[in-house]
Amino acid sequence: MATRSVELKRGLKDVYLDRTQASFIDGTEGKLLYRGYNIHDLAEKSTFEEVAYLLLYGSLPNQEQLDELDATLKSTRTIPEEVYRVIDLTKDGHPMDVLRTAVSALASFDPDVEDNTADGVRRKGLRLTSQAATIICAHYRARQGLPPIAPDQSLSHAANFLYMMRGVVPDEDEAKLMDVDFILHAEHGANASSFASRVTASTLADLHAAIVTGIGTLKGPLHGGAAESVMKMAEEIGDPAEAEAYAKRVLGGHGRIMGFGHRVYKAEDPRAQHLRDRSRSLGEKLGQPQWIQILDALVEAMAPYRARGIHVNVDFFAGSIYYLMDIPEDLFIPIFALGRIPGWTLQVLEQFENNILIRPLLWYEGPMDLEYVPIEARA
Amino acid sequence: MATRSVELKRGLKDVYLDRTQASFIDGTEGKLLYRGYNIHDLAEKSTFEEVAYLLLYGSLPNQEQLDELDATLKSTRTIPEEVYRVIDLTKDGHPMDVLRTAVSALASFDPDVEDNTADGVRRKGLRLTSQAATIICAHYRARQGLPPIAPDQSLSHAANFLYMMRGVVPDEDEAKLMDVDFILHAEHGANASSFASRVTASTLADLHAAIVTGIGTLKGPLHGGAAESVMKMAEEIGDPAEAEAYAKRVLGGHGRIMGFGHRVYKAEDPRAQHLRDRSRSLGEKLGQPQWIQILDALVEAMAPYRARGIHVNVDFFAGSIYYLMDIPEDLFIPIFALGRIPGWTLQVLEQFENNILIRPLLWYEGPMDLEYVPIEARA
Repeated sequence: MATRSVELKRGLKDVYLDRTQASFIDGTEGKLLYRGYNIHDLAEKSTFEEVAYLLLYGSLPNQEQLDELDATLKSTRTIPEEVYRVIDLTKDGHPMDVLRTAVSALASFDPDVEDNTADGVRRKGLRLTSQAATIICAHYRARQGLPPIAPDQSLSHAANFLYMMRGVVPDEDEAKLMDVDFILHAEHGANASSFASRVTASTLADLHAAIVTGIGTLKGPLHGGAAESVMKMAEEIGDPAEAEAYAKRVLGGHGRIMGFGHRVYKAEDPRAQHLRDRSRSLGEKLGQPQWIQILDALVEAMAPYRARGIHVNVDFFAGSIYYLMDIPEDLFIPIFALGRIPGWTLQVLEQFENNILIRPLLWYEGPMDLEYVPIEARA
Repeated sequence: MATRSVELKRGLKDVYLDRTQASFIDGTEGKLLYRGYNIHDLAEKSTFEEVAYLLLYGSLPNQEQLDELDATLKSTRTIPEEVYRVIDLTKDGHPMDVLRTAVSALASFDPDVEDNTADGVRRKGLRLTSQAATIICAHYRARQGLPPIAPDQSLSHAANFLYMMRGVVPDEDEAKLMDVDFILHAEHGANASSFASRVTASTLADLHAAIVTGIGTLKGPLHGGAAESVMKMAEEIGDPAEAEAYAKRVLGGHGRIMGFGHRVYKAEDPRAQHLRDRSRSLGEKLGQPQWIQILDALVEAMAPYRARGIHVNVDFFAGSIYYLMDIPEDLFIPIFALGRIPGWTLQVLEQFENNILIRPLLWYEGPMDLEYVPIEARA
């Protein structure tokens, strides 16, 4: 047994992997910039298409550049017939598993699959952004025994996504809400899914491989899975007056209140307020104010933990919005994935730009030099 | 722009992520142990089934334990009809892409997909080991327009793999060679694909997600892709007498000789000798000694680099064996993946056992607090 001891970096907590120009995150101040622009400006003034351009190209687009990106996104809103069939064959799986399978399957049909140039990666990243929306909606329809809905090319990415899912053109408020949600989820540094995508890319595997890794990694409840859990919790609580007792009961049993706490943010997640305000408006408009009231009551019940750096994160209010929009809970993570594709693409771009294989070490603590005993002599 | 500087851990070189009981690697001595047993003993005296047991359960099996594991492996050599159809629909893709898609698709049919208990992970790891062999062979046949070959339950995992691929029961030498190859590729610490699988698992995503990540990550030429490249290089060299000139030409042009050098090994990769010796015997038996002669000549030409720690790695001789066995080059990485599934499974087991979200940081070096300019006013 080895006796020298080493410093372990469990969870890679506080380890700086590399330089980035993607996003600036100040977890103490609760500040987030994409490419230098404050998330509050982007959430209030921009569109998902502009933000996708900003992330992939490094600056906000002028009208001509935006029109070109928009045309690219719109031209790739369909998927090969074979991939529709793959979705249909696997439709009984979790939507995240089906999304992962179908995005992986797209690699068999993409003529640029092995093009790892910056232009190739950007082009494929935009293509996958559109195609992933089509996959999620096609699967949602397929499991109800319904055919896919053809895209409406007059609509934005966010509005078209809701249209392909529900078959009704969303009103402006709903479309904007979906758009803001995508903006808020688009990029977030070396979070587990983006980091895993970088590890995949660091072997010089291609963007499809890296995004498939991102999707698989986002599925876990410690990452993308939280939004789904928050609304399950809100349903269980049922009444704002019960929130405090619920929190005490769960925390007393050493359980976890979903949607609180973040590896990086020790202040309120700056993305949360945009969803909270919009969730409140939507709930009032739909005559269902109770959900945001339950969530607000839970935030109040959790107030004593703020001093320890435990605040609501972006997942906390996202779920209530999807819920109010009649989106089933198991689509919450796929929607997160959909927003994140530009960010995954950008992380892969950065990795390729200055690549080095990402390969840490593990410290062995087990038996050494065991004698090989033939099977006849084993106990 | 931030001015404080931090220590960057690019590539996570020399960073110890965590403790392990999976394998001990001494890169300076060229020593590799699985669970305390020397790779030389395992390669010479054991079988892939015994090694899979060793990795997943921590000790070598007695006959009864081995029989049980063998029965489990044999009982899962088929895949759902829907997954055969997914393979057929995507068959024009690279075999690694098809393997990734089909393993991902299996998640839609596995009743245990979300069982993250140690027993569940072991069970699914063994299932995927068998199923991956079936997928690779079914795809190999499908792209030739041939139906899959049903498994032969009298054969070992390695022999059955060759049988399902070629339709002929392999002779003992070939079966043993494939078996040794799987043993040598079964586990190797925090290599990029195993590490990426751990990152996926660290969000508490499931084993299917983690193995899909492993497959995608292995595809890159800096990881699993090297075996494929070595034989392309040997074909290009064509004659042992040309090896030295080739090496000089490539290195003089700052190119890279594939199959040399390893992040961890600065001595000869202890796995290489087993494949070298067996490749030589197989080449002689088949009347094709030239390939190993070309590779040996290349090793000789690279001798001056040994002082700098650049030695042959496991990929260098693996390709020549597959080549002699008439296995097409684009199946080399899938075969590596097939051997590695027990290792990926073990890494996921270890991650779950003492989990922490794996999430490093990136150091932002870009513009700060840019003013948001409306699109009409952008240049």
